[in-house]
Amino acid sequence: MRSSYAGLVSEALMDQTVTLMGWAHRRRDHGGVIFIDLRDREGLVQIVCDPDRAAMFATAEGVRNEFCLKVVGKVRARPAGTENANLVSGKVEVLCHELEVLNASVTPPFPLDDENLSETTRLTHRVLDLRRPQMQKNLMLRYRVAMEARKYLDERGFIDIETPMLTKSTPEGARDYLVPSRVNDGMFFALPQSPQLFKQLLMVAGFDRYYQITKCFRDEDLRADRQPEFTQIDIETSFLGEEEIRSMFEGMIRHVFRKALDVELGDYPVMSYADAMHRFGSDKPDLRVSLEFTELTDVMADVDFKVFSTPATTKGGRVVALRVPGGAEMSRGEIDGYTEFVKIYGAKGLAWIKVNDVAKGREGLQSPIVKNLHDAAIAKILERTGAKNGDLLFFGADKAKVVNDGIGALRVKIGHSEFGKKAGLFEDRWAPLWVVDFPMFEHDEEGDRWVAVHHPFTAPKDGHEDLMDTDPGACVAKAYDMVLNGWELGGGSVRIHRAEVQSKVFSALKIGPEEARQKFGFLLDALQYGAPPHGGLAFGLDRIVTMMAKAESIRDVIAFPKTQRAQCLLTGAPSAVDEKQLRELHIRLRNAVAAQG
Amino acid sequence: MRSSYAGLVSEALMDQTVTLMGWAHRRRDHGGVIFIDLRDREGLVQIVCDPDRAAMFATAEGVRNEFCLKVVGKVRARPAGTENANLVSGKVEVLCHELEVLNASVTPPFPLDDENLSETTRLTHRVLDLRRPQMQKNLMLRYRVAMEARKYLDERGFIDIETPMLTKSTPEGARDYLVPSRVNDGMFFALPQSPQLFKQLLMVAGFDRYYQITKCFRDEDLRADRQPEFTQIDIETSFLGEEEIRSMFEGMIRHVFRKALDVELGDYPVMSYADAMHRFGSDKPDLRVSLEFTELTDVMADVDFKVFSTPATTKGGRVVALRVPGGAEMSRGEIDGYTEFVKIYGAKGLAWIKVNDVAKGREGLQSPIVKNLHDAAIAKILERTGAKNGDLLFFGADKAKVVNDGIGALRVKIGHSEFGKKAGLFEDRWAPLWVVDFPMFEHDEEGDRWVAVHHPFTAPKDGHEDLMDTDPGACVAKAYDMVLNGWELGGGSVRIHRAEVQSKVFSALKIGPEEARQKFGFLLDALQYGAPPHGGLAFGLDRIVTMMAKAESIRDVIAFPKTQRAQCLLTGAPSAVDEKQLRELHIRLRNAVAAQG
Repeated sequence: MRSSYAGLVSEALMDQTVTLMGWAHRRRDHGGVIFIDLRDREGLVQIVCDPDRAAMFATAEGVRNEFCLKVVGKVRARPAGTENANLVSGKVEVLCHELEVLNASVTPPFPLDDENLSETTRLTHRVLDLRRPQMQKNLMLRYRVAMEARKYLDERGFIDIETPMLTKSTPEGARDYLVPSRVNDGMFFALPQSPQLFKQLLMVAGFDRYYQITKCFRDEDLRADRQPEFTQIDIETSFLGEEEIRSMFEGMIRHVFRKALDVELGDYPVMSYADAMHRFGSDKPDLRVSLEFTELTDVMADVDFKVFSTPATTKGGRVVALRVPGGAEMSRGEIDGYTEFVKIYGAKGLAWIKVNDVAKGREGLQSPIVKNLHDAAIAKILERTGAKNGDLLFFGADKAKVVNDGIGALRVKIGHSEFGKKAGLFEDRWAPLWVVDFPMFEHDEEGDRWVAVHHPFTAPKDGHEDLMDTDPGACVAKAYDMVLNGWELGGGSVRIHRAEVQSKVFSALKIGPEEARQKFGFLLDALQYGAPPHGGLAFGLDRIVTMMAKAESIRDVIAFPKTQRAQCLLTGAPSAVDEKQLRELHIRLRNAVAAQG
Repeated sequence: MRSSYAGLVSEALMDQTVTLMGWAHRRRDHGGVIFIDLRDREGLVQIVCDPDRAAMFATAEGVRNEFCLKVVGKVRARPAGTENANLVSGKVEVLCHELEVLNASVTPPFPLDDENLSETTRLTHRVLDLRRPQMQKNLMLRYRVAMEARKYLDERGFIDIETPMLTKSTPEGARDYLVPSRVNDGMFFALPQSPQLFKQLLMVAGFDRYYQITKCFRDEDLRADRQPEFTQIDIETSFLGEEEIRSMFEGMIRHVFRKALDVELGDYPVMSYADAMHRFGSDKPDLRVSLEFTELTDVMADVDFKVFSTPATTKGGRVVALRVPGGAEMSRGEIDGYTEFVKIYGAKGLAWIKVNDVAKGREGLQSPIVKNLHDAAIAKILERTGAKNGDLLFFGADKAKVVNDGIGALRVKIGHSEFGKKAGLFEDRWAPLWVVDFPMFEHDEEGDRWVAVHHPFTAPKDGHEDLMDTDPGACVAKAYDMVLNGWELGGGSVRIHRAEVQSKVFSALKIGPEEARQKFGFLLDALQYGAPPHGGLAFGLDRIVTMMAKAESIRDVIAFPKTQRAQCLLTGAPSAVDEKQLRELHIRLRNAVAAQG
């Protein structure tokens, strides 16, 4: 049938007769000749329809945009000066011998190359939206990423084992999607938030190396980069330690970037969580931005400036500076803009110092706050930040979380700004790293209890087991995240493989033996039967592909995504259902009227 | 860490030091030496623990079944006469130097090699059940099958595109699993019964070649070979015709059998639906059984025996014989057993003739029915069946469906019986075929209307479009099923790609324009925009692997299956959920008491 994809016709096929199938991307008459840009998933090729083949030409005259066509013709060089360097086929064109309309098209509701369509329009007419070359590329890239991950894993003895989609609801973490059972009146399945427990069970069952590229579900209010269903590359292995696991999956991501994008990822620094928070205020620092925090908490304890001294002397408080080289040239308006920006993160304000002349000490500084700081403090600030003439220092002083979130975001915002790029604060590259040594627990002030940072099946560092009783906050986990350009690509941990350690964690989390048994009894049972040491991780496929495609939203790398109202504009899901269906499922609506609307 | 899988230690590693990780499958003391069969997913190897290494030996003394162990030792030949030809490692053993208990095990509730466990026990303790070597093999085979299918498709330019799990309920076909929406009060998603419409939309969007190995859901009462969630290898392609599609996916199944099972599948006969029903009474004939139907409907119109003449002269009736070579030796008891068997399919009885001496005509036959048949009919029976001395003829006479189902099942039952195997009626081989040219519609007597045999998106044969109006029963579809050893492995069709043909089908099915728009509007819309000719098929992965593994049930090739009550005995799903969860989903239980139970 087809001899080549239209988008792949090139000089290699010169003078050959080709048969192509595709869509009329554009059609134009020029000097009595009809030119059709024939499009398929691989790209475009120019078809030339000469009037000397009358029947064919008559057909060509009837062709409109998005007609589905079969073209038989001969590949020839484009006339000099009409080459198109942007196309694989840009040096050639196809002189049409036969043209068949496989299917006509009504006029599309919008031109396919309109770049300013609303998301509502795109999702409502998703089938046409998906015809756009960028969307074709995105989904083919997504496939290539997943397939290369599979190949890498296959070569290393990992096997894909499917875990259930209809599983048990565990009222922890995010909200479950529930599925009423017809056969079991009053009972519900839950769609999995992740295959976490099943993959651990598979390790206990001895499968040794498992993976799955699978849908997970969370019924949460949707943010820009979230979908009700999302795809994880989910992996677990037995008998490997933390570093071996990291090395193997760093290798996988390197392989995927190499094969799917022809990109060789550079160094993967390994940074402790503590170090990342200390230097960047974030456990997923964007290392493309060169700015770092300067710690000042110890310096500000005795200044006569409550904005700094109170957090410096309060448990859980933090004071830092962010030195912006060359930032003294920023206008007051810009600084005010950043002040508003950090307020999003709960900051009450944004103190700053412009460094005009370091040599002059206090006199060389321009700032509303220096008058409140004694000389020793000012000297320390200048020394620790390494401030130079022309720099701007921003300050964060508050609870550590407010400082980290606010100044951490400010760091990224300045780095990515026009100013930041001009000042060389941003390097346009792929900047991966591992963040390791996460704390086991964080304190939930509201509930006054400890909660698991990763999940309750994460193993503590060797020697940290007893800290779970004595000082949970100091207990470090064998957990790791892979971060790229400020996004978490994936994360995981070595798991607990001994029942007694698992019980200690539940006890630290104030999950009593009965509750533990009711929720996770099948895991505790399994751990009793010679569970092997094991660990793993999960990558967010949607995110990885979004980054690799440099797409604006994960919806641009998903064929049929939901809106932020969790609706599919193409099919109209979710929708009302028959009363009979509800009766069979032993449920009824609370608000009968709502269902009419 | 590990230098080799335990099950792969062989002569190739002779005299080398190996590090192994696995489970104590068996432990025995023999002449002061401890032998441990160490098991991992690849198999077993014998570990020899000599008392001359005291610390190691003390550890070995404490080892019990299912302990998780690390073994360092040297590979050596087994003493002559103790080799085990059933194991890869059967010629060698590992002399243990170091032994570490990675995790102890309590005594399992049953021995892992007990072949007579109830399914309830196996599914309740699924993690231990999965440790059994056969289950390890089954799931590794399943992976190999899926991965080889992916590789075959990848090489041919098919791309895996994920379609939604949360989609729209269409009250047709099987019952949907529903998922209440929290954000959209009173609305429900449905889990997909198949990605049929989405894959067609992807063809319209121009992706050209799609596949997905994905979960599908049907909330039906479960039979032995059904699960609430099952896995399809789902495929669609544009621009290929029926024969090209069949050839490509016959190639895929051949590839999978070759790579995963080292089996070269032989001929794939292509048989029309009409022919299959005519010769075997089934659209999925088991060609390992050599028996065939002999058509006698025309012969029996004028016999003085209402059991035959009534169906022979009634529209929709059928009379056939099934000649069983050598069957005359069957006892009356056996024949009575088969008579009961066909009653399951609605037959009222099972007429039979033993052929003692063909040359003697009527006198050479032993039967309760020959007295009712005139000489010409008897002559025709003997001629058409080609009966030989010692044969047994069974007869089916009823509505065609009853005859086809009953005698079709009888054919298979006799073929698979001890008698059938001894008589050479059964050939133990892989017997694949294509069944093609299915009817577009079948008449639903109850509803007095035509229903789609495949699904309403299936294209009619070229030239059959008008039959949809004039004679729907004569309209043949571009549909095809792949059958292996009497099981349907998969099936599909060329789809309708023109909106006007699709409308004709809806009209033949008495689906009015408004209903069609409400249910399938997004498909009809898509077909308007230059939809390409396309078609595809779907294979049932669970079934393919069940057959390849020669397993008794699809539950033996699924890691965590549900029971026939749609329950997971391991996790206890489905389960009751909090009232708060129901309130958030805007639903309530009909039977509050049921939920307590």
